[in-house]
Amino acid sequence: MARGRGRPRASGEPASGLSTEQEIRAAAARLFCTQGYGSTSTYKIAKEARISQATMYHYFAGKHEILLALLLDTVRPSVAYAGELAASSEPAAARLWRLCAFDVRLLLSGEENLGSLYLLPELGDERFAPFHAERQRLFETYRDLVAAAGDLAGADLAAATNLVFGLVESVILRRRADTGVGPGIDTRIADAALRIAGLDEAAVGLARAVAQPL
Amino acid sequence: MARGRGRPRASGEPASGLSTEQEIRAAAARLFCTQGYGSTSTYKIAKEARISQATMYHYFAGKHEILLALLLDTVRPSVAYAGELAASSEPAAARLWRLCAFDVRLLLSGEENLGSLYLLPELGDERFAPFHAERQRLFETYRDLVAAAGDLAGADLAAATNLVFGLVESVILRRRADTGVGPGIDTRIADAALRIAGLDEAAVGLARAVAQPL
Repeated sequence: MARGRGRPRASGEPASGLSTEQEIRAAAARLFCTQGYGSTSTYKIAKEARISQATMYHYFAGKHEILLALLLDTVRPSVAYAGELAASSEPAAARLWRLCAFDVRLLLSGEENLGSLYLLPELGDERFAPFHAERQRLFETYRDLVAAAGDLAGADLAAATNLVFGLVESVILRRRADTGVGPGIDTRIADAALRIAGLDEAAVGLARAVAQPL
Repeated sequence: MARGRGRPRASGEPASGLSTEQEIRAAAARLFCTQGYGSTSTYKIAKEARISQATMYHYFAGKHEILLALLLDTVRPSVAYAGELAASSEPAAARLWRLCAFDVRLLLSGEENLGSLYLLPELGDERFAPFHAERQRLFETYRDLVAAAGDLAGADLAAATNLVFGLVESVILRRRADTGVGPGIDTRIADAALRIAGLDEAAVGLARAVAQPL
C-alpha cells in the first residue's frame, strides 16, 4: 500500500484508499469548511487525518500550503479542460458551453464546498498569488471564448465575461441554500451563459447539440 | 449629539457622525471582512470602535448578534423594496428588472463586502436562522416575479430562479476580483436576469424602458 513519500503514520491504519497527502487534504477541507480556516490549527488537521504533526509538515509547510493546494484543485482542472478544448475543431460556442458545464460540475463536486474558501480575507496574502493567477487565467479563457462565440467587444465583452464567470461561480453560493442547485444545473448554466454572450435561441440550441449529443 | 441609548463612550470622541451602535457595526464589519469572523473577539471590536466592552454589550449580546445585524442589512432593504414594487401597477418584467438592479447595487454598497460573510461555516448555527429566513423570503419574491414575468413553471421555474438569484449574488464573488464588476453592472445583470426568465430581446428592452426611463 503506497503511503505518500514513505513516512509512517503516527497511529492507526489509513481509513481509506487515500494516500497520506490526500488524507491531509481531505481532513483540512473538512475542518476549513466546517470550523473555519482561522479556527483550524495544524494540530487539529494532523489529529483529523490521524497522523503526527511531523508527518503533516513532511508534506506541507503549513496550513496555508494546504489551503493553496485545495484552492488550486477548484480551478486547475477547468484550465486544463479549456486547454484540451482549444485543440479541438468545435465551434467556439460549443466549447464555451462545455467549459461552463464542466466548471459547474467541478465546483459542485467533492464532499466540501471548497469554493466557499474563495471569500476568506486571508486570501489577500501574497502566498495565495498562485491561486489568483490561475483563477485569472481561467477568467481570460472564458473571455476569449465569449469573444469568439458571439460578437461582443470592449466594455460589453468584459461585462459579459464577468456575468458568465459570476454565473458559473454562483453555484458556490447556491450550493448551501435550502433550495439547492437542482438537477441539470450544469446544462442550464451553460445555456444561460451562451445567451449572456449574445447568442440567440437557435445558436444556443445548436451549441448544446454539438457539445452534448443526445 | 445623540449617542445611542445614552451610554458614554470609554474614550475619545466619536470620529464620525455615526451613532454608537452604527460605529460598533462598522468596526465589526471591517474586522469580520479583513481579519475573519473567527479571529475577531468582542474585545477587538470594542477597541476598533473606541468604546468599552461594557458599552458594546449594552447594544449587542455578542459578536454573533452584530454579525446577524450586518447580514440582515444585506437582505432586508431588497425585501422591503420588493414589497413596494408589489404595490405598483408595473408589469412583472419591469418589477423583476428593478429588483435585480436594486439588489446588485445593495450588495455592492458599503465599504466592506458583507456578502462575503454568507459563506462562513458559523452561519449553520441556529442563531442565524432569522438571516436564512429573510434570504429565503427574498428568494421566493424573485421566484414569484420570474413566474409572473415569463411563462416558466415547475422545475424550469425553480432552476431559472436559482440562476437569477445566483447571478445577482455573484457580484459578491466578483467584487474582489482584479477585473472588478465594471460600470453598469446593475443594468447588465437585470437584463440578463430577464433573458434567463425566458424573455426575448424585445421584452427585455421594453421592461428596461419602463423601469429605467431615459
